Amino acid sequence: MTKRPRAQFAAWLQTGNTITQQFLAIGGQPDMVSLAGGLPAAELYPVETLRAAADRALTRWGSAAMEYGPVEGLLALRDAIAQRLRAQTGRAFGVENVLLTTGAMQGLDLVGKALVDAGESIVVQFPTYLGALDAWRPRCPVYEKLDWNELERPGFDATLGRAKFVYAVPNYSNPTGVLVPQVQRSALLEKVLASGTWLLEDDPYHALQFEGETGPSMLASAAARSDGPYQGPVIYLGTLSKSIAPGLRVGWAVAEIEMIRMLALAKQSTDLSSSIFTQAVALDLIERDFDLEHARKIVPVYRQRRDALCAEASMHLAEWFEWDVPPGGMFVWMRARDPRIDTDALYEIALQEKVAFVPSSVFDPMGKDRSSMRLNFTRGSPEVIKEGVRRLETAVRRYLHR
Amino acid sequence: MTKRPRAQFAAWLQTGNTITQQFLAIGGQPDMVSLAGGLPAAELYPVETLRAAADRALTRWGSAAMEYGPVEGLLALRDAIAQRLRAQTGRAFGVENVLLTTGAMQGLDLVGKALVDAGESIVVQFPTYLGALDAWRPRCPVYEKLDWNELERPGFDATLGRAKFVYAVPNYSNPTGVLVPQVQRSALLEKVLASGTWLLEDDPYHALQFEGETGPSMLASAAARSDGPYQGPVIYLGTLSKSIAPGLRVGWAVAEIEMIRMLALAKQSTDLSSSIFTQAVALDLIERDFDLEHARKIVPVYRQRRDALCAEASMHLAEWFEWDVPPGGMFVWMRARDPRIDTDALYEIALQEKVAFVPSSVFDPMGKDRSSMRLNFTRGSPEVIKEGVRRLETAVRRYLHR
Repeated sequence: MTKRPRAQFAAWLQTGNTITQQFLAIGGQPDMVSLAGGLPAAELYPVETLRAAADRALTRWGSAAMEYGPVEGLLALRDAIAQRLRAQTGRAFGVENVLLTTGAMQGLDLVGKALVDAGESIVVQFPTYLGALDAWRPRCPVYEKLDWNELERPGFDATLGRAKFVYAVPNYSNPTGVLVPQVQRSALLEKVLASGTWLLEDDPYHALQFEGETGPSMLASAAARSDGPYQGPVIYLGTLSKSIAPGLRVGWAVAEIEMIRMLALAKQSTDLSSSIFTQAVALDLIERDFDLEHARKIVPVYRQRRDALCAEASMHLAEWFEWDVPPGGMFVWMRARDPRIDTDALYEIALQEKVAFVPSSVFDPMGKDRSSMRLNFTRGSPEVIKEGVRRLETAVRRYLHR
Repeated sequence: MTKRPRAQFAAWLQTGNTITQQFLAIGGQPDMVSLAGGLPAAELYPVETLRAAADRALTRWGSAAMEYGPVEGLLALRDAIAQRLRAQTGRAFGVENVLLTTGAMQGLDLVGKALVDAGESIVVQFPTYLGALDAWRPRCPVYEKLDWNELERPGFDATLGRAKFVYAVPNYSNPTGVLVPQVQRSALLEKVLASGTWLLEDDPYHALQFEGETGPSMLASAAARSDGPYQGPVIYLGTLSKSIAPGLRVGWAVAEIEMIRMLALAKQSTDLSSSIFTQAVALDLIERDFDLEHARKIVPVYRQRRDALCAEASMHLAEWFEWDVPPGGMFVWMRARDPRIDTDALYEIALQEKVAFVPSSVFDPMGKDRSSMRLNFTRGSPEVIKEGVRRLETAVRRYLHR
């Protein structure tokens, strides 16, 4: 059979990025030190606990764990999440405010499907999470800038008024690791309420607090503004990927009831439902507060790794980069002091030196920012991380003396 | 907080249907006989086998079962599926031709994302699977008609030439239960090859053969046309939802390598990856050929239920409806002989009589066909199915004597 031209792929795929797949491939090379991915420490995945939870879930649910949905997910798990929200906020969240997803990532996809038509605008942090840009690419949006330090800049209210939603990661943002102060969150929430747009609060790193406290979520602040059923503009995404393990693929969206209904229609169009089996496993663990308990074991390990990365970087990279020590999360964001440094170009040399990071261009909705890089500190041991930093120094020196 | 108008939902949601959610809700009413859903017999889900498989999978894979993807899914399961394809077809399918999905339903979503821009055309069987129409609604396609009995009609070649892909369910189609003869499949494949379009072969019911044989898939026929790597236009969707249990949410797409690459980009945008844990469970079962073995237990049960439905319908519904006894699958498609019957209207009365079916309008991309209804025979016992048919008779009599 001769190979003939076939009907073309959809237009958005011509703008697609393959960098996530590249990172995953790099992760498989044994002599590479990858500071690139956003992966948890695999040795901390609680395999034996999950084995016991799976066993208990099948005993409790039997064949019901093997059914199709409901589209919105296992009712008892939605209820358990609503209970936690009620306990945390004192507000009247119910099962009707919760939809279960295949990781928080699917929540991003569903919100895009539910709100965005081609050419409409989304307001996002610059730099912003690569996976969010991926999720919304098939909807062909345009991006406008959220700068937490310039909420009062002229025109921003009009920008919000035009936007379908604002995307924010207030806790230990990916890629920058920044914890947004409560006063800025409140100011943004006021503007969102005044403009009539939605606010998508993505909160995967909440459990990874190394020092200090995050304070209330923007969801909680929105809920606190009225009694009765939740009617706020905040759509909140949570996940067990960071506090237990990503392989369960259990995440959730919390929103007012009409938004949940639309997200459910979008989910029905996407996969009918996520696995009820893994949701039943997650329920078993959440009812025991295992995720909270396990996060308390993860945090000191990650704190030590963050400290190892920052200490080694102070010795080997401070001449060319500056950074803030993140109070939580998984990443250090390094900004080049030296204007000669283009992190896209540095990346090529770093790969030759067998170390990987993520260049800032992929986090820029415009694809232009080449001044920074994201380093992950959760996946490798302190020794491996330090070796990665030393290789980065070699790469920078080679880069500057090309 | 006063409720204020917020940014609107995306345009496609104004065309969305809620009927699948209605069916799921109806399924929960204890006094309702639902012949509406497309659900397997829950009492046949192999819960103890799944418990043992989950245990073995965690022993074998450990923390690797709890990781993020690869996007394309667990390599060993992709390989096992490729091995089966090689054994069945004698052709050179490899892991690079297989992508794992959250049920075959996600395959439909991904193909729509990968191929369709707004206003482009898809050629589909009329009536067609409701879930496929759901999956593609966010892409805003237009539909053109595939009539297996009129492949030579004037203009059909041009229709194919314009289409992004053809959607076909040759084995025991949902909703009609028809097994498409090999001669018609070959004729369509020739036309697809000549036109340069793609062909999406959705094959969830393959394991549910009550009598006779399906013959080769269209994928196998396309592969047989050349040696070497698969380069055909057929994209094939498989699933364990019917042969084991839907709650695993393990399905797969098989296609030529560039299409798999694009589907992987679409999947990365959707959920990063499906659960590697449930894929590891599925691998354990597929390596033992458990799905094939289990299907041999399911088939006689479903055959008996089909016969119960058709026998009872002969006694109670033949005055007003005609049907073909399906040689496999999950559904009987009943066409009204009586032109006074509008199945949308009949549906309302049937619900009052505590019996549910699916009216033909939801399977018509144009939403117009009100002449037929789909009855499911896999979910209930023969006694429950017969009671449902008797209630349907009462509903028809009431409907005709309003």
